[in-house]
Amino acid sequence: MIPLSKQIQKSAAGVETDILKNRKPTLQLPVRSLQNVRYDLKKGFFSLGKKRKARTLTVSTVKTFAQTLKMISTSKTLVDTAEIATKREMYYISKNWGEARFLEQDESDTIMDDVEAYFLVNREQLGFIPEEKGGDVAGRLVIKDKDPESGKTLRIDCTKFGSGAYSIPISVEELGFETNAAFILAIETAGMFQRLVKHRFWDKHKCILVSLGGVPTRACRRFIRRLSETCKLPVYAFMDGDPYGYCNIYRTLKVGSGNAAHINEFFCVPQAHFLGVTPQDILDYDLPTHPLKEVDIKRARDALKNDPFIKIHPPWQKALQHMLEMGVRVEQQAFAAHGLNHVLEVYLPQKLKQTGRFLP
Amino acid sequence: MIPLSKQIQKSAAGVETDILKNRKPTLQLPVRSLQNVRYDLKKGFFSLGKKRKARTLTVSTVKTFAQTLKMISTSKTLVDTAEIATKREMYYISKNWGEARFLEQDESDTIMDDVEAYFLVNREQLGFIPEEKGGDVAGRLVIKDKDPESGKTLRIDCTKFGSGAYSIPISVEELGFETNAAFILAIETAGMFQRLVKHRFWDKHKCILVSLGGVPTRACRRFIRRLSETCKLPVYAFMDGDPYGYCNIYRTLKVGSGNAAHINEFFCVPQAHFLGVTPQDILDYDLPTHPLKEVDIKRARDALKNDPFIKIHPPWQKALQHMLEMGVRVEQQAFAAHGLNHVLEVYLPQKLKQTGRFLP
Repeated sequence: MIPLSKQIQKSAAGVETDILKNRKPTLQLPVRSLQNVRYDLKKGFFSLGKKRKARTLTVSTVKTFAQTLKMISTSKTLVDTAEIATKREMYYISKNWGEARFLEQDESDTIMDDVEAYFLVNREQLGFIPEEKGGDVAGRLVIKDKDPESGKTLRIDCTKFGSGAYSIPISVEELGFETNAAFILAIETAGMFQRLVKHRFWDKHKCILVSLGGVPTRACRRFIRRLSETCKLPVYAFMDGDPYGYCNIYRTLKVGSGNAAHINEFFCVPQAHFLGVTPQDILDYDLPTHPLKEVDIKRARDALKNDPFIKIHPPWQKALQHMLEMGVRVEQQAFAAHGLNHVLEVYLPQKLKQTGRFLP
Repeated sequence: MIPLSKQIQKSAAGVETDILKNRKPTLQLPVRSLQNVRYDLKKGFFSLGKKRKARTLTVSTVKTFAQTLKMISTSKTLVDTAEIATKREMYYISKNWGEARFLEQDESDTIMDDVEAYFLVNREQLGFIPEEKGGDVAGRLVIKDKDPESGKTLRIDCTKFGSGAYSIPISVEELGFETNAAFILAIETAGMFQRLVKHRFWDKHKCILVSLGGVPTRACRRFIRRLSETCKLPVYAFMDGDPYGYCNIYRTLKVGSGNAAHINEFFCVPQAHFLGVTPQDILDYDLPTHPLKEVDIKRARDALKNDPFIKIHPPWQKALQHMLEMGVRVEQQAFAAHGLNHVLEVYLPQKLKQTGRFLP
């Protein structure tokens, strides 16, 4: 694969040649929309189709064209100097571009999405990092990172943080991993993560615990993806049992989302399977529930009708229909009704003996 | 000080005695409202006044009274077994209380606030932990924690996390600290934290970096408080320059909030001072700005008129008035307009030479 810095140079050279030869320079950008998305079961994620739109330099596109080139150039500097910039910082950098400066961050973000799709990389590889951190890790994992000053390898042992945890950095592209774990357990709520950490669940069950803290950030998703891929580990998702947990959080974690198909390749986790909480668990474990809200019902029905992921997996259709019939949703914390540690002493161990029955 | 478990026993014994002697049992609870709050400049935080309300067992209070006693009893079990429960788990535990069970978590949370105020502790000391984690740490700090299994002391060196960080656990009551740092830098945005971590700002400037990630969680505030108090370190706050950053995030960090005065004692950080971004910085560093929104103007005017913290500190009144006159707000990321690392190479070092001029 050609290094990114070279790719950037090559595309810039193409534009330059066009200009020198008095031709209108053009950038071919992938169309980023649901109409240009395929769900390939073998690949395991929503991926980008072949549709392209041409951005040609004309009187009406001159500002956008200049901004795109300026951002590509900034990106090259970031890559060459191993520097980073947040989306917000990128917006402020443009304040020195004179007429080409962005007036709102929205403009700047759109161009960044275009640049990302143009080079078919995730923008972290271009040096652009998200604003938010998120995601904590504990358990049988050694993370290999570099000291930014000396370049010496640091070995970060995630079994040694007591009640605390390793906080995933904003960019995880350079991290290495060593582990003797058998699986990764991705947990929706921070409270449940803290309970499993407190009782060293990762030790007895030979695993790595990752706290998503609700909808996982890009960095957290990319971390799980890289870890599961590098170390060939399955990922088991432990989330609230409601249509949002199933069709939004879990679905996005596993196969990605429609309007960001150009990056699903880097962020989705095809190795993920759904441990629970399932509608069947409500019956099997006699869990306290709450009635489905109007929005839950709508979300479940929409997914059954329109979501390519649900439509390809009969077990998910069955689960959603089951939930709609029962008319209730359930939370991870509901196990507390049977004793605070029922979840780690009974539920999780029983479930982990039947991974073959996890939802796809 | 009497151990908490004993205090709980004593208060329960009082109720029992009343009942056995055919007297109506009564619990004296502090009134939790702004009318029962004092701002003591010497203490450094909003504190609770002397007003009490009596909760006496009558026909109409029987359910609330039973719930209060049941929760106090649960808390004793948690304290005695060194166990933890989130607010949501506490709500589910009550599902086994028959008629006394909570129907909504709101009811359960209100009683928890009462119990917390009754014993004049923060609820983490009673074993009740928040749902959310938050707050990352990097720099010159060794955290001492215990392995929950073996009880052995763990030494967690926050200089050894590379691009990552130490994630603050939900409860920090048991942590110990060793440091040779000169101050704690509390940073509003995760992106800015990542930049300072990447360039090992903590090494050159002998400090501990804490990422608040927006409005700091309870655990994060308590962590900063305990760290600054134990190690006698000043806390410098580095935040966006807008009325929300000044009057909400910073004010709450430093002196606490009105409607939670019974716990400010544990959560506020009187050692905090405001490094920036100040309205004067906008002029001194020629920073790009955004116009104040309607809500910003209202918030600043309200604070000038009603906030006891602002009213006691003329430098804050001046700063807010200055901001209102200029009509603009400013973000931490704005320094990027002068180069990505201007903030850590120029702004922060210059500011840190004049800590005496920080806002109170």
